[in-house]
Amino acid sequence: MAPKLYGSVRSIATLRAVVAFHEKCVKFEFVPLNLTTGEQKKEPYLSLNPFGKVPAYVDGDLNLFESRAITKYIAFEHLGKGTGLVYRDLKKMAPMSVWMDVEAHQYDPVATKLVFEQAVKPFIMKMKPDSAVVKETHKKLGQVLDVYEARLSKSKYLGGDEFTLADLHHLPSMQYLKGTSTKRCSKLAPM
Amino acid sequence: MAPKLYGSVRSIATLRAVVAFHEKCVKFEFVPLNLTTGEQKKEPYLSLNPFGKVPAYVDGDLNLFESRAITKYIAFEHLGKGTGLVYRDLKKMAPMSVWMDVEAHQYDPVATKLVFEQAVKPFIMKMKPDSAVVKETHKKLGQVLDVYEARLSKSKYLGGDEFTLADLHHLPSMQYLKGTSTKRCSKLAPM
Repeated sequence: MAPKLYGSVRSIATLRAVVAFHEKCVKFEFVPLNLTTGEQKKEPYLSLNPFGKVPAYVDGDLNLFESRAITKYIAFEHLGKGTGLVYRDLKKMAPMSVWMDVEAHQYDPVATKLVFEQAVKPFIMKMKPDSAVVKETHKKLGQVLDVYEARLSKSKYLGGDEFTLADLHHLPSMQYLKGTSTKRCSKLAPM
Repeated sequence: MAPKLYGSVRSIATLRAVVAFHEKCVKFEFVPLNLTTGEQKKEPYLSLNPFGKVPAYVDGDLNLFESRAITKYIAFEHLGKGTGLVYRDLKKMAPMSVWMDVEAHQYDPVATKLVFEQAVKPFIMKMKPDSAVVKETHKKLGQVLDVYEARLSKSKYLGGDEFTLADLHHLPSMQYLKGTSTKRCSKLAPM
């Protein structure tokens, strides 16, 4: 039986796991949740992710949540398939871990705020973005991407010279921001 | 030569790495930075952590930052020493990764806000905590710790039946909060 991924195609965190499955060429069953009605905050889903957030992963007895823990499991469980996505050598794994944590702690909070202002508000909530918040957050994103540019002048990808989870974890929010003014204001590379 | 850890004993993130070194019984050289004068935002430190945050780890050519990436490296580099801190079996490693990410994304943002209000403001900045923020954040911490209680009714530690980085990463902020009203209001276990 294929593993199940519970989530929403609107959710950046869910899409991280979806991209990991695709990169590893692993079949999975997608179980969509209606975030608008708060399906993720109620049973039976709460038993799969007690924080009421998407996604959750289920394969037999194994139940995982937190998107980056799921992508790591998918990458290590299917080491021989598709794109590598992780290093096994500790000296290469360590810088990859650094840049995975940079994505989670330096990039993602800024990108998520911009996705909310630039995509969720206008296209889903039918509200106007707060231009002051957008301007301030663009500045913060620019500072993070300056560090990325310096890093990428020394290695081909963030985690090293191969495409890894450190890069992959950025894709869903970058995809959202591509269609917004953030693409023009910042240094987001074309994808 | 022992690895160097740059940071501040006031910094929760620095202390995560310090505790990891101690649990693994690994000697290290501590290089203190003066956060009050912004030493972490200037060269030469910026070359070690381009985000201008502490800590940074240097061992020969290897330069790491992001505290949790550092603790992971310390744990895997010294597998045979001191406390285990990590699982090597993938089926055990996956839930440990989940709870490491829970610490980073569900617990830490709430705990850090409380440390700022309850410890940094009164003891370092000589300011009064914002009681409304403390009250609201206690509620959020309580919700996270309710999930922890359910988890800890099924496994001895957060990451499984052994003490791992998933637990260790909580220690510095819990140590700060022990001396505050947060200990009485929430379900923080005595340490």
